Amino acid sequence: MEIRVDWRSSCSLTGTVLKWLSVPLAAPLVLAVIDGDDPLPFLVAIAVAVVLGGALERLREERTLEQREAFLMVALTWFGVAAVGSIPFFVTGLAAPSASAFAGPIDGPVNAFFEGMSGITTTGATVMSGWDFENQSRAVLLWRQLLQWLGGLGILIVAIGLLSNLLVAGAQLMETESQTRNVRKLHPHLDETARLIWGLYVGLTALAAGTFYALHLLGLAPEMDLFNAVSHALTSVATAGFSPEPDSAGAFTPIVQWAIIPFMIVGATNFVLLYYLTQGDWTRPIESEEFRFYIGVLAVLGAIVSAMVWLDPETSSAVEPTIRHGLFNVVSMVTTTGYASTDFDLWSPGAKHMLFLGMFLGGMAGSTTCSIKSLRWLVTIKAFRRNLFTSIHPEAVRPLRLGDEVVDEETVQDVYTYVLLAIIIFFLLTVFVVVDSVRVGDGVGEFEAMGASASIFLNIGPAFERAGPFENYAGFPTTTRIVMIVMMWIGRIEIIPVLVLFTAAFWRS
Amino acid sequence: MEIRVDWRSSCSLTGTVLKWLSVPLAAPLVLAVIDGDDPLPFLVAIAVAVVLGGALERLREERTLEQREAFLMVALTWFGVAAVGSIPFFVTGLAAPSASAFAGPIDGPVNAFFEGMSGITTTGATVMSGWDFENQSRAVLLWRQLLQWLGGLGILIVAIGLLSNLLVAGAQLMETESQTRNVRKLHPHLDETARLIWGLYVGLTALAAGTFYALHLLGLAPEMDLFNAVSHALTSVATAGFSPEPDSAGAFTPIVQWAIIPFMIVGATNFVLLYYLTQGDWTRPIESEEFRFYIGVLAVLGAIVSAMVWLDPETSSAVEPTIRHGLFNVVSMVTTTGYASTDFDLWSPGAKHMLFLGMFLGGMAGSTTCSIKSLRWLVTIKAFRRNLFTSIHPEAVRPLRLGDEVVDEETVQDVYTYVLLAIIIFFLLTVFVVVDSVRVGDGVGEFEAMGASASIFLNIGPAFERAGPFENYAGFPTTTRIVMIVMMWIGRIEIIPVLVLFTAAFWRS
Ligand SMILES: [K+]
Ligand SMILES: [K+]
Repeated sequence: MEIRVDWRSSCSLTGTVLKWLSVPLAAPLVLAVIDGDDPLPFLVAIAVAVVLGGALERLREERTLEQREAFLMVALTWFGVAAVGSIPFFVTGLAAPSASAFAGPIDGPVNAFFEGMSGITTTGATVMSGWDFENQSRAVLLWRQLLQWLGGLGILIVAIGLLSNLLVAGAQLMETESQTRNVRKLHPHLDETARLIWGLYVGLTALAAGTFYALHLLGLAPEMDLFNAVSHALTSVATAGFSPEPDSAGAFTPIVQWAIIPFMIVGATNFVLLYYLTQGDWTRPIESEEFRFYIGVLAVLGAIVSAMVWLDPETSSAVEPTIRHGLFNVVSMVTTTGYASTDFDLWSPGAKHMLFLGMFLGGMAGSTTCSIKSLRWLVTIKAFRRNLFTSIHPEAVRPLRLGDEVVDEETVQDVYTYVLLAIIIFFLLTVFVVVDSVRVGDGVGEFEAMGASASIFLNIGPAFERAGPFENYAGFPTTTRIVMIVMMWIGRIEIIPVLVLFTAAFWRS
Repeated sequence: MEIRVDWRSSCSLTGTVLKWLSVPLAAPLVLAVIDGDDPLPFLVAIAVAVVLGGALERLREERTLEQREAFLMVALTWFGVAAVGSIPFFVTGLAAPSASAFAGPIDGPVNAFFEGMSGITTTGATVMSGWDFENQSRAVLLWRQLLQWLGGLGILIVAIGLLSNLLVAGAQLMETESQTRNVRKLHPHLDETARLIWGLYVGLTALAAGTFYALHLLGLAPEMDLFNAVSHALTSVATAGFSPEPDSAGAFTPIVQWAIIPFMIVGATNFVLLYYLTQGDWTRPIESEEFRFYIGVLAVLGAIVSAMVWLDPETSSAVEPTIRHGLFNVVSMVTTTGYASTDFDLWSPGAKHMLFLGMFLGGMAGSTTCSIKSLRWLVTIKAFRRNLFTSIHPEAVRPLRLGDEVVDEETVQDVYTYVLLAIIIFFLLTVFVVVDSVRVGDGVGEFEAMGASASIFLNIGPAFERAGPFENYAGFPTTTRIVMIVMMWIGRIEIIPVLVLFTAAFWRS
């Protein structure tokens, strides 16, 4: 078989990314030195990043990325960063007592890789037990947060900046939104677009850290020290969800929870729209059909869940906490962040099912959000309505419009393919989780398996029961956790770039 | 609001169908007289059929059916026949002691309508308790079977014969298969096509009855008396699933179970292909991509489930019963018949999940089967593969082929719409079943709710736990049963003809 893909170029670019990973790895290294903790985990990771990255980089000098090479590079990069990024967890685990979830001769590498993949894919599902939260160094905890922040930045750059024609239904859809094109006209150089996005992302993260820490300085948030403020800033705009606190956002005062909500919402908003906002242009967001749909979904689902929490005598409380918890956890699920302000696993089945449905929604395209995304749902709903219309008027020709633009029929099909594939893969993952659990003699519940599968594949993080917001994924069998690692990877880079790797046409034609 | 749909024509045609319903109603009437049972339930139903049908018929003398009128007529007819067809159950319930599932002042009409809708939609989900199976007259039991047989015939006529451009992705897809067109060329008059289909259906039913009864006469099937032979013939080719026996096909000897399998398979095969078979033409079925896919699915899923039953120490037995039960229940689920040869609810979660996935497959288009159907899955899989290819070769134009023909892109979108709508509606129904169950303080399991929802909406019949094959749906809350009645109706006439009724464009434009 003759391979026609220039895989050396893909590997070489992945190598460059891996090499540069040594820079953010320096941050926890410095913190470890300051705190007097073991710097070895980070030194090993930096060494591997430099040596492996440098070696891969040398595979090709002149690198050209066509469509297929770009797919391969994205798939390899997310996998490679997850692997190298998990080295600090693995090395830490070697030295830890066996009470740690990272320790143990078999589970060690799997759990470390799980945590690394969950980090870079901004999933936020953890295998850390209570022991880890109490005993891991701040350096290790910071690295988890940083990995997620890098993952959010990476997806933004892929979706908007460098490789905008890449993520099939993500970026092709972005094209249908006039915003992107207009920004391109303003800033025709790709580097410049990337720099704008990067600037906005850094700025929002700094704003979040400043806000959280200001609340602390004002005496309104005793737990929100500088470390926590930075840690949560790194994973809120990134809609990522890791927290150094075992109780996630539930560890903080109500005002902190209120303060986190807008940063999750902003992180899941199209960054091109955000750019216009920074230019004082408010009309574009208001005119964006997708933005209104996204905000509408948050409001309606937030109201429904708050009402359900309110009506259930088991969870009913005063007005403010009811609205806060209802809204916070709906925003957290829909934006795919995965924080929890309270243990929503104790809510009624109705409220939990609403959160479950919310997982499939996702925020806006062109943001750090994961899942199916509101743009795809908007197109799907419009396509449903159009097909109902043409079923009674078969002769009618009715182009599908989004804002002022016509969505071409190929894009409609791409969207349908994506939504259906996502749902089918989620279904099959659920069946695997159930069967694998029965295989090891440990009966997982159906809803438990569904929630965990959706949360993993759609990169949200927590779900219900053993995958509940204050629980961790170490309770699933090792085989399930290995499959979940792969599913986080496939879900984050939007399915298609991985699936095509398994077609012969990818390598030969 | 000005109504532009000629609803009088639709109602008038529904009236004609209702009037003619008095003819099959005569069969249980005669049986009741022979057996010395109460003939009143059937007399009332006949009176209502004649009076109501006659009145509706008079709404319009010259009847013309355009697309919309045809949709409305199909929706009204299935609803009307279910309502009138449930009268015998309701009237019987009035006279029965309160131990009957049909009796009681509140549940009476709901359960009777449930049974009637389950009958005409060929779902086969029952609310009959053990008491009913022991105490209902043979006339009532026969009427359940006859309703299902009529439902299978009705769907065949709609899908192939009279209204072939009607059921969106059912019939438009049929068009893509050259077979249908060729039959039309041979027999250009629609009546003639309908007569061929009708003849085939009657012939296959007679063959099934003859086969079953012959096994009885040969002493191989003591339980399969003439009444049972006719009853099961009426609901096997119709892929319908009602049985006068509480243990369904489990009440009979293994050889009977083997004999039922081919009739379920044939009932879910495209009747146009069957017509060619009767002409001695074996090449067309073999050349049909959909037929090979359908048979392949049955074989592979049958093997998987048999292996799972075999490997589970709880259910493992000898080779013949393992293969028989594995194959029988897979065929029953995939063809949407809903018989059970054994209580598969006692199988392992893995095997049950395979049956659950099988529910979504369905048999061939142009047959009596329900669910999504193999043609739609075949198109979906081909569209997936095509979209993967074009995602790496964006410039490529690759028409989607089925056999020798190109499937046009509008049909691909219709198929996507249908599959996605079916899955989403199933999901929402599951959530409703769970929430409604919690509302009445009765915790339904997640898999229990999923199984029942899929089985109801995809018109299969049995599922798991309280909806298990040897159980009945009376255990669900009344509100859930009312919603299930509506969902059986929507599912059987393929979603679109009902959904369009809720659009303003249907009535006005
Ligand atoms: K997340
Ligand atoms: K059925």
